[in-house]
Amino acid sequence: MSEQKQTVLRLGDIKYAQDKWNTFGETYNYIAINSNENVTTRAEFLKDLDSGKYDGIVGITRTFPSVALTGRFDEELISHLPESIKFICHNGAGYDQVDAVAAAKRGIQVGNVPHLVNDPTSDTHVFLLLGALRNFKNGIISLGKGEFNANCPPGYDPVEKPVVGVLGLGGIGRDVVKKLQPFGFKKFIYHNRNRLSEDLEQGCEWVSFDDLLAQSDIINVCIPLNPHTKHILNKAAFDKMKQGVIIVNTARGAVIDEAELVNQLKSGKVGAAGLDVFEHEPNVTLENNELIKMRNVFALPHQGTNTFNTIKKMEEDVVDNALGYLTNGKLVNLVPEMKGTFY
Amino acid sequence: MSEQKQTVLRLGDIKYAQDKWNTFGETYNYIAINSNENVTTRAEFLKDLDSGKYDGIVGITRTFPSVALTGRFDEELISHLPESIKFICHNGAGYDQVDAVAAAKRGIQVGNVPHLVNDPTSDTHVFLLLGALRNFKNGIISLGKGEFNANCPPGYDPVEKPVVGVLGLGGIGRDVVKKLQPFGFKKFIYHNRNRLSEDLEQGCEWVSFDDLLAQSDIINVCIPLNPHTKHILNKAAFDKMKQGVIIVNTARGAVIDEAELVNQLKSGKVGAAGLDVFEHEPNVTLENNELIKMRNVFALPHQGTNTFNTIKKMEEDVVDNALGYLTNGKLVNLVPEMKGTFY
Repeated sequence: MSEQKQTVLRLGDIKYAQDKWNTFGETYNYIAINSNENVTTRAEFLKDLDSGKYDGIVGITRTFPSVALTGRFDEELISHLPESIKFICHNGAGYDQVDAVAAAKRGIQVGNVPHLVNDPTSDTHVFLLLGALRNFKNGIISLGKGEFNANCPPGYDPVEKPVVGVLGLGGIGRDVVKKLQPFGFKKFIYHNRNRLSEDLEQGCEWVSFDDLLAQSDIINVCIPLNPHTKHILNKAAFDKMKQGVIIVNTARGAVIDEAELVNQLKSGKVGAAGLDVFEHEPNVTLENNELIKMRNVFALPHQGTNTFNTIKKMEEDVVDNALGYLTNGKLVNLVPEMKGTFY
Repeated sequence: MSEQKQTVLRLGDIKYAQDKWNTFGETYNYIAINSNENVTTRAEFLKDLDSGKYDGIVGITRTFPSVALTGRFDEELISHLPESIKFICHNGAGYDQVDAVAAAKRGIQVGNVPHLVNDPTSDTHVFLLLGALRNFKNGIISLGKGEFNANCPPGYDPVEKPVVGVLGLGGIGRDVVKKLQPFGFKKFIYHNRNRLSEDLEQGCEWVSFDDLLAQSDIINVCIPLNPHTKHILNKAAFDKMKQGVIIVNTARGAVIDEAELVNQLKSGKVGAAGLDVFEHEPNVTLENNELIKMRNVFALPHQGTNTFNTIKKMEEDVVDNALGYLTNGKLVNLVPEMKGTFY
């Protein structure tokens, strides 16, 4: 029997789960690459992989911001991983930074954190929706300048934007609906490719994609980013929407054609937007992004899950996910498209 | 029979109820004092009243911002009103700008707009609560500067601030509770002087004022301003609160001792505040108000009812209130403390 500890490569900073990792470290080894230890670039990381530096490592955990250290886990990067790698545990619900198809071909399980994000992200979503609906950015900016402008441009009541559409009624979308239900909107509709069971629908009406676009006063983007959903809200889609529609996106920026969204906001076709995510984040500056300067765009820099409680629980969940493989050969939370492939 | 039309003095700007006033004008006269017509100051207004300019006028409608034209409807101003004045219709739920006691002594009915404000104000309240809870001001400011700072300081999930206290479970307070209920808080408590009936409590537990202060992780200020409630949240009250308590106020600024709130935010005793109202508004500038510069104060310039729909409905409601007196001798919505006095 080998007494050698198995080793995991941990990519990205850990904020609050140090105890969990310390316990993990009693049984397993881990090598940390983060903003303090073994800082790297994609080129260096690929070189290190090719040099055999990480040979024998059994799995990888990674954070969303660690993309700055390695780039995307795309087909190229995955092709450089040593044979020994059997799992990649992503810290987040959306794992578009990891090419799960390429991983599957190499027999690598990919895991995510699917449930913990629902509550904090839907809280953020409701916040952004209310801010966009009520046109509150003007008041926030004027007060920030020391101007008590009670004559800020008005916004809308829910009864003025009564049809709430959800694009992607998954865990986050359902929580958004649950939290919006007492606000006095008149109708909730959703589009998924397949109709959900009635108990999961929570009173939302299933409609086609085109009907969602045509009927919604507020369109809530709650779908994951993948090759099928990239730019699903493009010019053709905007053309089908109501005049003055409000768009709220806490999923991924690239689900929307962002350049086109700018046009639509300028024309007034889109009345307002609430955005937590951007197509080219974190590369969002006053020079390269018009959205953040627009008064009818109420936005945050990807804060959906930024709470003490959720950060800690997600970081711990990633460790538990890895432990699933290490103790049992199976990640606890395998990404959906791998279910049935590995187990 | 006199064919002379009765005349009403209309104080303050009308934004969206022009049709309603035009119809009103077919049967009654009105004299407008606003930012375009007959602009006045308190001194000029008192002089005009004394000169007999407004003698014979039967009633007054007024807006919250019209205080800039006349000052408060305090005992002094009311003593200058002509004998003919029989009603004052205030556009708003909170009528602290009108001394109802002084008006009652002169036999003047005072009316307000009690119900229409509940939904938009509670929407604003939930928005400010989420912003303060989640510490979103940092993200808004950083993104406004073109910095995509995903490392903004975290905020809290509802489970981390589980006890929601409502000071004043009236129409707005109840709507706040109704809208917060799906967010996953663990307990709702309230303090009113008298316990409400169970159906109005909506599952909130009635507690003493001191228990509300001691138990709440989030204190929601939803009480009207009057001599009894002014500075009800003073140093003695803050001393009884939990460390890191979050305060949200969409009622009136002066319910809180604002200078003391600054101290408590600086010390960290109050962790964050969400404020739509200020003690000395609209006189709020970077020079005279520390709150608006603090990163843990998420604030708006009194936007509680600032929606197209609500502004219009409130403006129309004021006309209907006046019509109640003109056609029937009774305002439709008399302020609570006058109920039973006039009718």
